[in-house]
Amino acid sequence: MSRIVAVAPDTRPVMHAAFTAAVGDAGAALGDLDAAEALIWADPFAAGLYPELIAAAPAVQWVQLPYAGVEPFADYLDARLTWTCAKGVYAEPVAEWVMAALLMGLRDFHLFAAADSWCAESGRNLLRARITVLGGGGITRSLIRLLAPWGCEVTVVRRSGEPVEAAARTLALADAHEAVTGADAVVVALALTDETRHVVDAALLESMGPQCWLVNAARGGHVDHTALGAALRAQTIAGAVLDVTDPEPLPDSSELWRLPNCVITPHIGNTREMGLPLIANRVSENVRRWLAGEDLLGLVDVSLGY
Amino acid sequence: MSRIVAVAPDTRPVMHAAFTAAVGDAGAALGDLDAAEALIWADPFAAGLYPELIAAAPAVQWVQLPYAGVEPFADYLDARLTWTCAKGVYAEPVAEWVMAALLMGLRDFHLFAAADSWCAESGRNLLRARITVLGGGGITRSLIRLLAPWGCEVTVVRRSGEPVEAAARTLALADAHEAVTGADAVVVALALTDETRHVVDAALLESMGPQCWLVNAARGGHVDHTALGAALRAQTIAGAVLDVTDPEPLPDSSELWRLPNCVITPHIGNTREMGLPLIANRVSENVRRWLAGEDLLGLVDVSLGY
Repeated sequence: MSRIVAVAPDTRPVMHAAFTAAVGDAGAALGDLDAAEALIWADPFAAGLYPELIAAAPAVQWVQLPYAGVEPFADYLDARLTWTCAKGVYAEPVAEWVMAALLMGLRDFHLFAAADSWCAESGRNLLRARITVLGGGGITRSLIRLLAPWGCEVTVVRRSGEPVEAAARTLALADAHEAVTGADAVVVALALTDETRHVVDAALLESMGPQCWLVNAARGGHVDHTALGAALRAQTIAGAVLDVTDPEPLPDSSELWRLPNCVITPHIGNTREMGLPLIANRVSENVRRWLAGEDLLGLVDVSLGY
Repeated sequence: MSRIVAVAPDTRPVMHAAFTAAVGDAGAALGDLDAAEALIWADPFAAGLYPELIAAAPAVQWVQLPYAGVEPFADYLDARLTWTCAKGVYAEPVAEWVMAALLMGLRDFHLFAAADSWCAESGRNLLRARITVLGGGGITRSLIRLLAPWGCEVTVVRRSGEPVEAAARTLALADAHEAVTGADAVVVALALTDETRHVVDAALLESMGPQCWLVNAARGGHVDHTALGAALRAQTIAGAVLDVTDPEPLPDSSELWRLPNCVITPHIGNTREMGLPLIANRVSENVRRWLAGEDLLGLVDVSLGY
């Protein structure tokens, strides 16, 4: 008898349909909550429905969540169940966003995009540039993969300082100032914790120097936005491309909208349209693994909450 | 006794200094025109000085030019001498420009760069996109190298139809319509000849379709700009990024400046600043080869004129 998987809630029809297809592709039987042993959560914005749904699903042992970070489920994580999330799933489109940001900034495409007349020539190469990445997770690994043909010198900064493959050097967070000195761009791809909040502060911006672009693909809270505004105005850094802001959305009153060396994108490192096939693939792969008794991808440590 | 190389004219001091250093790096003796066996031409905008300088250089057997195309020297090419040019030298920064253009267009960075308020999410992936390149030369090879990690399906269109390595398929120019159908982007990287003038005309734009970006890194004359303006206005193609225009510079009166789905960059695929170290490397390599009696890179066929 095949094991039954439920996809719920059905409040986001496009995601529900994609996950239903993914479960079918993996060879599992779809069923209602009352008979299901696994629950694929199908609406990232409806965490509040969880208590009601899980009460109707007494046989569920495993819950797959659609998030990279599981903060909306923090209150519901129950150590009697197995939880998986979308860790690493969205790294590739975010790394693509970083490449777009690096190339726009270094080649001055942000100026050309806004021009209505033939400009003077300008721009620098990403080819053979020095790139420092804060963070050593999935986005960094995907970015290093995309950067492979460019001959860049990549420095990674991470908590542990444990070497990242294919990086020229890996430094610990304590050595961040050394790591950003002389860089053509600094990419923020860290998890946001008490330790990394405002890791990009006035002092780090000063270490970056006037040739350096700041590219934030992580969380707005990593950057002291007051210090950033001052550095951009004074051109003590070359510019910034931000996919995340603090607060977010960034209000129209922010001076950052009006600085020519600052571009803000509306948290689209991974859009819903890009993300859906990626998370659907993860659902399919995890259902296949679950049926085969193999280890699941993206396990959440309930005691740590991520 | 070492063989003497002259670097002339001295009308562009930065280029003259770079070439002088490059000749020294290669181990040749620098000297005046009257004793030189080789002449490294050091000002792309001073071809008119050539008759006077060569008259003062009776022993010169080889002339290295700083151009990718040698049109300014067309009247001076003398089959008694060996001529080399910068063929292939500038392909890499131009391929980088193409990557910047593809990512800006597909990810909608041209809209975000001009925004002064938080936008709705939008954008598509270059990852796994279908890219058609018109042209099978150095820029195309460099672009294919940079695209290697992106999982794109690359179609190359070239006169001969002779297969290009690492392209999914190579078609002849006669099959251009088939090649662009369904593409996410069409990149123009051809030489401009009578055969390729207006290769991107109203009919080809129609074959490209509303999902497709046009990226022109070659010459303005490849594109029928009237047809392009109409296609961009009607959104029968997604957009265009042009590094070259017709006429060039594009006058302020052109409607292309005011279309939100068209970005014009001022012929900066390869800027002077980017190009100088590349051509200096070529000079150094060719002087080394010349001293060692090896084949020179970038030989010009005087009878063909390129």
